[in-house]
Order: sequence, then structure tokens, then C-alpha cells
Amino acid sequence: MNNNFGIHDLAFQAPSLFLPIAGLAAARGIEADKLKFGLGLNDMSVCDVNEDVVCLAAGAAIQLLKQNPELKPTDIGRIYVGTESSIDGAKPIASYIHHLISEYYIAQGENGDELNNCDVVDMTFACIGAVDAMHNSLAWLRTEPTKVAIVVAADIANYDLGSSGEYTQGAGAVAVLLKHNPALLTIGDKWGVATKSEHDFFKPIRLKVENNEVISIYDEKPIFDGQFSNETYQNRISEAWKHFQVENHFTDYKQLVFHLPYAFHGRRIITPLLINDLKETDRLNGFSPLLDATSADFIKLFAKSDAYKSWVKLMIAPGEKLSSEMGNLYTASIFLGLMSSLVNAELAESDKFLFFAYGSGSKAKVFEATVQSNYKEKVANWNVENQLADRIQISFDTYIKLRESRQLSPLNKNAEIAQTASGIAHTNKYERTYSLNL
Amino acid sequence: MNNNFGIHDLAFQAPSLFLPIAGLAAARGIEADKLKFGLGLNDMSVCDVNEDVVCLAAGAAIQLLKQNPELKPTDIGRIYVGTESSIDGAKPIASYIHHLISEYYIAQGENGDELNNCDVVDMTFACIGAVDAMHNSLAWLRTEPTKVAIVVAADIANYDLGSSGEYTQGAGAVAVLLKHNPALLTIGDKWGVATKSEHDFFKPIRLKVENNEVISIYDEKPIFDGQFSNETYQNRISEAWKHFQVENHFTDYKQLVFHLPYAFHGRRIITPLLINDLKETDRLNGFSPLLDATSADFIKLFAKSDAYKSWVKLMIAPGEKLSSEMGNLYTASIFLGLMSSLVNAELAESDKFLFFAYGSGSKAKVFEATVQSNYKEKVANWNVENQLADRIQISFDTYIKLRESRQLSPLNKNAEIAQTASGIAHTNKYERTYSLNL
Repeated sequence: MNNNFGIHDLAFQAPSLFLPIAGLAAARGIEADKLKFGLGLNDMSVCDVNEDVVCLAAGAAIQLLKQNPELKPTDIGRIYVGTESSIDGAKPIASYIHHLISEYYIAQGENGDELNNCDVVDMTFACIGAVDAMHNSLAWLRTEPTKVAIVVAADIANYDLGSSGEYTQGAGAVAVLLKHNPALLTIGDKWGVATKSEHDFFKPIRLKVENNEVISIYDEKPIFDGQFSNETYQNRISEAWKHFQVENHFTDYKQLVFHLPYAFHGRRIITPLLINDLKETDRLNGFSPLLDATSADFIKLFAKSDAYKSWVKLMIAPGEKLSSEMGNLYTASIFLGLMSSLVNAELAESDKFLFFAYGSGSKAKVFEATVQSNYKEKVANWNVENQLADRIQISFDTYIKLRESRQLSPLNKNAEIAQTASGIAHTNKYERTYSLNL
Repeated sequence: MNNNFGIHDLAFQAPSLFLPIAGLAAARGIEADKLKFGLGLNDMSVCDVNEDVVCLAAGAAIQLLKQNPELKPTDIGRIYVGTESSIDGAKPIASYIHHLISEYYIAQGENGDELNNCDVVDMTFACIGAVDAMHNSLAWLRTEPTKVAIVVAADIANYDLGSSGEYTQGAGAVAVLLKHNPALLTIGDKWGVATKSEHDFFKPIRLKVENNEVISIYDEKPIFDGQFSNETYQNRISEAWKHFQVENHFTDYKQLVFHLPYAFHGRRIITPLLINDLKETDRLNGFSPLLDATSADFIKLFAKSDAYKSWVKLMIAPGEKLSSEMGNLYTASIFLGLMSSLVNAELAESDKFLFFAYGSGSKAKVFEATVQSNYKEKVANWNVENQLADRIQISFDTYIKLRESRQLSPLNKNAEIAQTASGIAHTNKYERTYSLNL
């Protein structure tokens, strides 16, 4: 048996709504061009009233099944979710997806009960949990090579209204189909990893005493320090790259894919690593002959050089485009970046991808993938442009109504998977239920 | 390379306090003998003011390192946590343990920074998340056989005061050291699994509007239906056993280990599976010759037969003893059951364990393990009895004060790993910090 395990296909689910960043910038008194040209932001994904993280996750997973109609329920050995937007402290999002996939197969005339022996669980480490779900599922596939695994990255990235995180917001899910002899990419079974406990971004469960009763407040909006988080991101990817690197250099790769808290984060954060790598391979002068590598402001000058800009356009920009339209998807950002690269970059069989994954709190992983011969057939089936075009544009006022729970009825009546009334009504039992509209 | 991967050692951490079940029964007007002889409950573990799930988890992990002083920071390739008692929506408990282990190594004169390339994450599926962490870590070890993995199961199982879950409460953690050629048990790389989305026990994050602001309430105390959860447990383990079973029968095993929501749950839930298995092997009459297998009340009669009681005493009771002293530990229950079996059962090399793991919501796994030649040397190092004896007994009144956050200072000043004041004081930033007292 060969060692070719990896990504067979990808599918993504956007929420029904979006807010143009220019609209947010105007309302918040921020210069729109700074967000557009400085951070690469165009639109922000926004969830409708009847959409939650389960709807997004299951939507992506079912889209993946539609793209791969040859899959049968008994083929699916596991459904692993990476998320930091859990709706329950005990019951995983993966269990809801399992149910909705089972319903989907029943609607297709298949035996949905055959999904009974599928293993499901949620993994949490800020934005990197889905990469962990993927690495673990690939290791498992090596023991069960006739099965497939579905990994779903799904999150809703909301910040405090008016905070410096607000304009980076987004929501969405990407489902990843993993199998032996995949059509898209093989993933290497070694990766670099670096961990250090930090409080750069976190969502503490806070205790509060109210009427002599202790209640726990969970806030989906994080406590964060953007500048510090940039530092921890930088430090962890440097350490993970060192851990991964044996004789690898950036020149070995055709595309770099990042966890993107905002579209241009990768191109901003990678310069020191690239400069080091160019030094190691004695190519720094060749890369950027007009710069004096000994000057104090070298990194800044380097980042502004035409040579660097050309390199970014080739190596990184293809992976940023979907992020610009969707915003931050936390765990799903790096997989959306991968989809974006595969759609927008010029690629050929055997080209290599290099991934920089990061989760606040803090951990980074660096790993690589290799493009397979028939990757274009898979990418041709993606409905990325249609999904983006199908979204409903909302105003800043509607966005605020949604965030403050004053918008009571959905703006889009056609959400494919919707949270049903019993979930929305916050009943005593609070059993969340979902309906399929396929 | 042989395929012997499994559990090299186990360590557990009890909270500092315990409440005798008899004291709870008296206060709640429950017949104490019903809890003692019906459910197998003696004492309930209770956390002190400065103990939370991180203290328990890190305490177990550091105890594991103390038991295995030959381990160096660079040996530890991953720290995976299974829990349903998360303290944060994004930052995993595993990141805190990583930090505290690093501090421990620094205190030992080692280079704590060498833990930098260790991979850490949390996994959540009610009580089964740590079993998932173990299975995934074993699959990973097969690709990195020179490393070790630490899996920590840690939970605080609190229920609403006065509810039918209250007397099953408990808290604690078990750390599991996984490696190639383990001293205790090898774990088979195949398991049976069964999943169905249910709401037998869950901890929904509830939205509440307060002063025109939407706040999310997270309640550590579950919504549950005990009778329904017994049914889902029964159904899922039956399905997982069928999925696992090729030519296995109960006679192939020396010990059965269960997830135990209360000490006697395994012996109560296993009868239909045992009866089926005895039928399949034509041993039902031999096992219980006085019973008429056609009678309607057969399962009840069977469960009361001397033959069944003797079988339970041999096969299940050794694994119940620590649960009786500790209560329900959610994810850690099955691993505490394993420790209890290893301490209390008569075992020999090559004896086989059969595990029934369950997580509400719902999923079961069935898998097996094989006793290794030197297992007794490892078990002899455990400080189980001492840890139980070191706990401070509290009264029902103190228990209520603790639960209602009216007990402000710790009863035990010597907690090895304590939550420090900044965490307890619920500061604005709410960065939880911990101190080591080694």
C-alpha cells in the first residue's frame, strides 16, 4: 500500500448574508481604503437569524457529499469537527452533523442508519482545531485505508461591536474529505509543531453571582490583544517551521497557505521567515538586490520591495481572495485559503503547498501537501462564485439588529439547513433541532 | 517494529475534599442504603475553592511524570485532553497543562522550553472524549514510535442541587501515558463504535437578553434524563459491541471496564449483552441452570442469580471500587475504572480487558487491551490509597457553601496545583493562572 493519504475534495458553506466592509467603515468612522488595501477586506459574512454554526458545518458537509455522490454511508468512518464556536459544553457539533448527514442520505433513498458505526467528536484549540482533526484523521485512515474521513472546520467569528476586531469578522465552514489516493492533495505524515500557553485571544467562561445564584457567562466574543497575538503567531510559526524544516526551503513550494485572521495577514507575518530562508540559501541579494540587508529597517524595506510584492502575488495572493470576501472563519480560514489557492493559482501535478496553521493560546503547525494529477476536475465542481453571489447584502443597520437579537425573522427563507423554532425559542429543554431544505 | 502500542502507566488526581454519601442522603431524605447497596456509592469527591478542572488535570499529569522520572521533555510529543468541563471556548485545558508541565520540568532542573514542540488540544464528546484522545494518540504514535503521548481525562461532574444526579456527583482526573512497548497494557488498533445524535444529557449554551444585551449562559450542570440516558447507553454499547465483535465473546476477557456514571452502572447495563453472548456460545444453561430463558422476566431473574453475582464479583466489581470512593468523573471514569481493576483484580500476563466507553449525545466505543508481563511493577507505584486517605472530609453544610460560592478561602492549604487569586477574583481580563506547590 502506498503512503498517499490526503485531501480528496473540499466544500464550503457561507452564511446567507454579507455586509460590505465599506458600509461598516463608514458607520465606524474608519478609512475604508485602510481596510481594503491595508488588510485586504471587501465583505464580511454574517449569519441570518436561523443560521448557527451547526447549519454552516452541516451545510459544508452535505455540499461535500453532493460533490461526491459515489460515497455511501458505510464509507464514512469518521466525522471530526474543529471549532471554537461550540453550542454545548458536552454534546459535540459533530453529533448534529452526523444526524443531518444521516437525514440527507435518507432523503436520497439510502439507508441513513448505516452511518451508525461512524466515529464523531469535536476538537478545540482556537483556530487550529480543524488542522488537528485533519492530522489525526489522516493517521487513523492509515489503519482503515478503505474508509473516508470528513473533517469540518466551522466557526462564527464575532467581536465586540466597535472593537478593533469587528472589521475582521466573518463566519463559515469548510468540509474536507480525506482518503487514500486522494484526487486533490496528498498530505505529508510529518509536521512541525510549536506550543506555548499564552492569553493572546481567549473566551473565558466567567462566573457571576446573581440573586444569590452563581451563573456562568460564556461570551462568544473573545478577549484579545491583536498586537500580542501577531507576536505569538509570528513566534509559533517560526518555531514550528524550524521544527518541520529538515532541508526544506521556501523555494520548494508553489503556494503558501495561512490561517488568515484577515486576508493580508500571511503576507504581513511571513517576511522574517522568508528573509532568513533567503539568507540560508544565499539568495537574499538575488531576490532583492537593491536592499541593504544590514540596515535596521531592512524588514520594512524588504516588505515594500517590488521583488517581495511579486513574490506575494505569485505565492500568497491566490489564497487570500476568498478571505477578502468572507472575513475571518477561525478554524475554517486556512481551509478556505487552500480552496482559494486551488481556484486562483497556476498549478501543476507535484507542485507543493506549504501550510502555516495557528491557534491562539497558542500553537502553530507547519506542514506540506502535494498537488495530484486530476486536481482540476475536483476544483471545477466547486460552486464558490455562485455561493458568494447568492448571498444577500445587508445594511449596517440590519447588521446591528442581527447582532442585538432585534431581527426576529430570517431575511433568507431558503437557508438549506436551518435552526428550527424550538432551538430559537430557547425552550426549557433547549434541544436544538434543525431542518433540511435540500 | 512490532505493533505493541498502549498504556505504559496511569496516574490520578482526586480533589482535596470529599462528602460521605450517607451525609448527603440524610440531608436530602434519601435512604442511604439504597445509594450504597443499589448504586455502590460511598463518598463523593468535591473540589476546594482553589481547585478547578485544570488543577485536577495538571495534578494527574504531573503525578504521571513523577512516576516516570526517566521521561524527558523532548520525549513528550503530545498532550491531549478529553473533557466536558472546559473553562474557555477557545483556549484548551491542554495548553494550561502544557505550561504547568513545563514549570514542573524547570523545577526539576530540566529545560522546560524543550516542551515547545509538543502538540496539544482538547477533545469533547461528553464522557467519551478522552477515549477518542487515546485512540487518536495511539494512531499517531504508530508514526512516531520513539515518542510518548500523554492523554488526560478530567472533569467536574456537578448537577443541580437536589436533583437525581446530585448523589452521583464527583470530580477528578486520570493521566494516561501511551507508548510503544508499554508496561501495563497493549491496546488493539481496532474498535467498535456506534453514534446516534440524542439529547439524553447535554449542557446547552443558552442565550438570554438582559438590559437589552444578549448574554450567553453556560451551565456546568447538565440537562439530563437519567432513564433515557440508560437506554441510549445500552443501545450504543450493544451496537458498538456488534461492530467490534468478530469472533469475540465475553469468555475471552478477564475484566470488563465501563464508563461508570455511578459505581454499579456496568453490572446493571451489561446483562442483555451477556445473555445474548451466552446464548450464542450455548452456555446459557450452564451459566444459570435454574433459570428459564423463555420467561418474560428472564433478564431480571438472571441479574439476581447467584451465577450472575459471582460473575460480576470476578469480572466487574474490581473496577467499581474507586468509583465508589470518588463518584462520577465523566471522561475520567473509565480510566479510573481501569486503575481500579488493575489494583483489585487477580491478573496475569496476556489477560484481556474489554472496555465499554460511552458519551451522552450519544456514542459508544468497545475495545480491548492485553495485560503486559511487568504490569505489577507499575501498579505498585500508584498512590491510590494515600490520595484517598489524604482527602479532607466535609459536612453537608460545607458542601452547600462551596456549591453556592459562599466558601471563600480554601479548606486545604496544600493543594499541589492551585488556581491563583487572579483567576478566582474574576478580573476583567480573566486570565486564569495557577501555582505549583511541589
